[in-house]
Amino acid sequence: MKYFIEHNPLNYDGSQLQSLFAYKSFGIMGDSMSVFRGSCRVEQNEMVDIEDVLAKDWIYSEDMLHFIVEHFDMDLEKTIIRQRLLIATIKEEVEKLGVKTLSRSGDDLYEEGKKLSVSISTLSPVSSLIHCGLNVSNANTPIPTIGLANLQINDVLEFGESVAQHYCDEFLSMRLARCKVRGVL
Amino acid sequence: MKYFIEHNPLNYDGSQLQSLFAYKSFGIMGDSMSVFRGSCRVEQNEMVDIEDVLAKDWIYSEDMLHFIVEHFDMDLEKTIIRQRLLIATIKEEVEKLGVKTLSRSGDDLYEEGKKLSVSISTLSPVSSLIHCGLNVSNANTPIPTIGLANLQINDVLEFGESVAQHYCDEFLSMRLARCKVRGVL
Amino acid sequence: MKYFIEHNPLNYDGSQLQSLFAYKSFGIMGDSMSVFRGSCRVEQNEMVDIEDVLAKDWIYSEDMLHFIVEHFDMDLEKTIIRQRLLIATIKEEVEKLGVKTLSRSGDDLYEEGKKLSVSISTLSPVSSLIHCGLNVSNANTPIPTIGLANLQINDVLEFGESVAQHYCDEFLSMRLARCKVRGVL
Amino acid sequence: MKYFIEHNPLNYDGSQLQSLFAYKSFGIMGDSMSVFRGSCRVEQNEMVDIEDVLAKDWIYSEDMLHFIVEHFDMDLEKTIIRQRLLIATIKEEVEKLGVKTLSRSGDDLYEEGKKLSVSISTLSPVSSLIHCGLNVSNANTPIPTIGLANLQINDVLEFGESVAQHYCDEFLSMRLARCKVRGVL
Amino acid sequence: MKYFIEHNPLNYDGSQLQSLFAYKSFGIMGDSMSVFRGSCRVEQNEMVDIEDVLAKDWIYSEDMLHFIVEHFDMDLEKTIIRQRLLIATIKEEVEKLGVKTLSRSGDDLYEEGKKLSVSISTLSPVSSLIHCGLNVSNANTPIPTIGLANLQINDVLEFGESVAQHYCDEFLSMRLARCKVRGVL
Amino acid sequence: MKYFIEHNPLNYDGSQLQSLFAYKSFGIMGDSMSVFRGSCRVEQNEMVDIEDVLAKDWIYSEDMLHFIVEHFDMDLEKTIIRQRLLIATIKEEVEKLGVKTLSRSGDDLYEEGKKLSVSISTLSPVSSLIHCGLNVSNANTPIPTIGLANLQINDVLEFGESVAQHYCDEFLSMRLARCKVRGVL
Repeated sequence: MKYFIEHNPLNYDGSQLQSLFAYKSFGIMGDSMSVFRGSCRVEQNEMVDIEDVLAKDWIYSEDMLHFIVEHFDMDLEKTIIRQRLLIATIKEEVEKLGVKTLSRSGDDLYEEGKKLSVSISTLSPVSSLIHCGLNVSNANTPIPTIGLANLQINDVLEFGESVAQHYCDEFLSMRLARCKVRGVL
Repeated sequence: MKYFIEHNPLNYDGSQLQSLFAYKSFGIMGDSMSVFRGSCRVEQNEMVDIEDVLAKDWIYSEDMLHFIVEHFDMDLEKTIIRQRLLIATIKEEVEKLGVKTLSRSGDDLYEEGKKLSVSISTLSPVSSLIHCGLNVSNANTPIPTIGLANLQINDVLEFGESVAQHYCDEFLSMRLARCKVRGVL
Repeated sequence: MKYFIEHNPLNYDGSQLQSLFAYKSFGIMGDSMSVFRGSCRVEQNEMVDIEDVLAKDWIYSEDMLHFIVEHFDMDLEKTIIRQRLLIATIKEEVEKLGVKTLSRSGDDLYEEGKKLSVSISTLSPVSSLIHCGLNVSNANTPIPTIGLANLQINDVLEFGESVAQHYCDEFLSMRLARCKVRGVL
Repeated sequence: MKYFIEHNPLNYDGSQLQSLFAYKSFGIMGDSMSVFRGSCRVEQNEMVDIEDVLAKDWIYSEDMLHFIVEHFDMDLEKTIIRQRLLIATIKEEVEKLGVKTLSRSGDDLYEEGKKLSVSISTLSPVSSLIHCGLNVSNANTPIPTIGLANLQINDVLEFGESVAQHYCDEFLSMRLARCKVRGVL
Repeated sequence: MKYFIEHNPLNYDGSQLQSLFAYKSFGIMGDSMSVFRGSCRVEQNEMVDIEDVLAKDWIYSEDMLHFIVEHFDMDLEKTIIRQRLLIATIKEEVEKLGVKTLSRSGDDLYEEGKKLSVSISTLSPVSSLIHCGLNVSNANTPIPTIGLANLQINDVLEFGESVAQHYCDEFLSMRLARCKVRGVL
Repeated sequence: MKYFIEHNPLNYDGSQLQSLFAYKSFGIMGDSMSVFRGSCRVEQNEMVDIEDVLAKDWIYSEDMLHFIVEHFDMDLEKTIIRQRLLIATIKEEVEKLGVKTLSRSGDDLYEEGKKLSVSISTLSPVSSLIHCGLNVSNANTPIPTIGLANLQINDVLEFGESVAQHYCDEFLSMRLARCKVRGVL
């Protein structure tokens, strides 16, 4: 599993959550995590979480750190567990920077009721996909939010890379953990 | 998914990591987490981690809080991801008690290099299984360890129940998250 | 697994056989059976059974009791077995009302050569789906049919609920049956 | 999928519920149903239903019609659905002989509270397996039972063959049903 | 698994690589191989190999022997292994005609650096699919190629049938090989 | 996927076909191919091919080149396809040395009716496994055989490494091929 850091700004509008995004955009073949920074604005017809569609929620942030993860298997339940682990990993990477005030609730991260993240998992015809976005700025969001800037995390893409490195390392270590146990009765 | 708290002491010797342990011992049918407290002593012939067998590591603790998780599917990779999420969850439950000094490294928890946990996942002929043990006492362990007692977590089974409750709730929320998204291209 | 009885008339035109129908229409999340009553008219471009398309069969009934089942796994073979069991279940529920003249042939129900049912299973991008429709009236159908009215089953939605209750109960009992056996050699 | 009718008596003691039974015993390779007649006596250490083991139930019948089904996939949930469909099929084959008094409850068949059948599904290391036994005689059974003889089904193996023929035909028709539908959204 | 030889010319433009092609075109239900002869011209918007799309490769041949394989399972990795075996099988069938100069490189066949074949595997919403085309003529191809005509294989469809027969036979023999082994520890 | 060449002699008696053989013996974790040379004598109680057991065939060769492949998934059908591809690969590697007289029949290699190879695939509780042995010498075998020595392949382990290198490379290329296609309808 590889990751790619896009240093140019790239706005997220939902269309990035599609199969082979990393390969088409960055030439990365196989399981991957793409990291980039840009605004987040997803219109109703691009939303994949039908709960949000039914609630007429909309997703907007001026400036976010985005992660797109693609795994080339078709088990959505497995990818949702991976998504939760990714969220836990982000929290742990924030803690390594000395910020110990975040809490995780499912696939969301909060600081004292203010939301840091949006996230969704789904299936494509050939893979499973995760999007996670972390607010950089918390200006003008539709609900109370917190941003990485408020947490004094200013080198946003460097932070994104630490998350990507950790997630890819853990992916490999889990694959190996699967290969060193005997069965039991 | 259900959990069961065994209030009587029960020592772990590796034989508890078998299919239908919760059903045979506590009458709990289906995906489950069993929680109990007792010593931990696993002899070489009961060890399932062949890495430990090859290294002639042995596992011993005078007093541990034990979790046995059984999922009735046969995907070991998926259960290993669940195991990592369980370890992250334990860390988060410790944090809710005000202790913010733990760090997770894969399926292990540490406080400043001292190990709090042991954990393993494997397959049975009909299910997948996780064992996780947390030291209560750190006395007489073969490597430097920390115990829940050192973290001032004294109501050990109550803490175990908070972990079990959280894990079971998250299991349900992940199942529902799988059922509310449309596919993408 | 949950069921939902829609008491308002709802005509079936094939577009109901889509992922998340129960969630979008009735707010039911997860594996589900939706039950409703209305006409059935499926045009060629909405048909999913290519055998019917090739034969230029068309499906029409003035008044039907409809079941839409959604299971959030992607194993079409498994859902086709479930579909056969659903058809057997409908026959058994009819028998409980004293009508012992139906026979099952695959996914069809007949009374002396007259057809009571239509049914199909398929995959969506995120789930597997079953539609089954039972004629209430047998007026103006393109082939010889029998309707629930002919069988003196007049409380149509109540009958639909008995089927739904039975199917959901059996789904749960099968899940538990999977969790109480040891493997063999 | 093939079936084999063993015309010589063969008593069932639980050891027949093992992988490759049909191949080792009758030379039938691949998915199969074996049909034979003999007593049924399963001791505690051969029982695979842990619910029965915990309840200290024992299984005994002087004379039974036995079905052993083996499917070469490892999805126990799928085989349990097949098992329910097999039980429904047996009931339907009885009905074709004019006996319309049976009712199915899960994987059991009854006539007015008297039990006709025993059945279990499980996994082997290479396949999934079903056993179903139907009482021929109801003499000396530990609980109130009914036998095929009481239902005036006297050509027991011929009846067994009609069930086997029907089950194998339906297996094929379900496989084809999986191969003639387009997906939906 | 069945095969079908279409004796009328049929040009390949990419649209044949869709689910149920054999059923819709030739009435063949279930796992199948379709064999036909015609030109090959796939425009960018019909290409499924994104590597080719990114490289702006285009696929053109005046006259090809085409194989379309459909397997009704959804495991793309498995179908890619089948694809490699198909390519090896084509090479072996060529050898039976006395031509021992081909070499296989992944899913391509060459004679001394000149390409004989194109091939791709992908998923449909209900199945997995393989296309393989072998040049008959090597005239006017965009890269150096060799054709069956250059190898003195002039009865092209007869050759296609020998491949299809071999592939279908091997499919069956692999299914049986899965059903005659015990597990190991 | 990694391979390991054991340069010391190691006789094959069937017990090497077990889970984690490469890890326990050579410290290789994950999908692997082990290559070694030694005699081959498998007693009836170690045989996993029940067809051989029923036929009372026995397997003996004074000197063989052995391959043990372990894949950490549980799909025996997939591993049997891999096994066929491995056999095709061995034939292709022999051809690269100028020997073009071998033919493949399923999972066997022959030269003019004389058998070069034995091979079997099966499941362990945590993985799937392949054994393939190639005669070096054809002395004293129970059926007519050919050996690598007869084919003038004298650097046996070097030949084994070329097969292992090719198989591992192809494994990787197939994994990538899975990750560069879009789905079709």
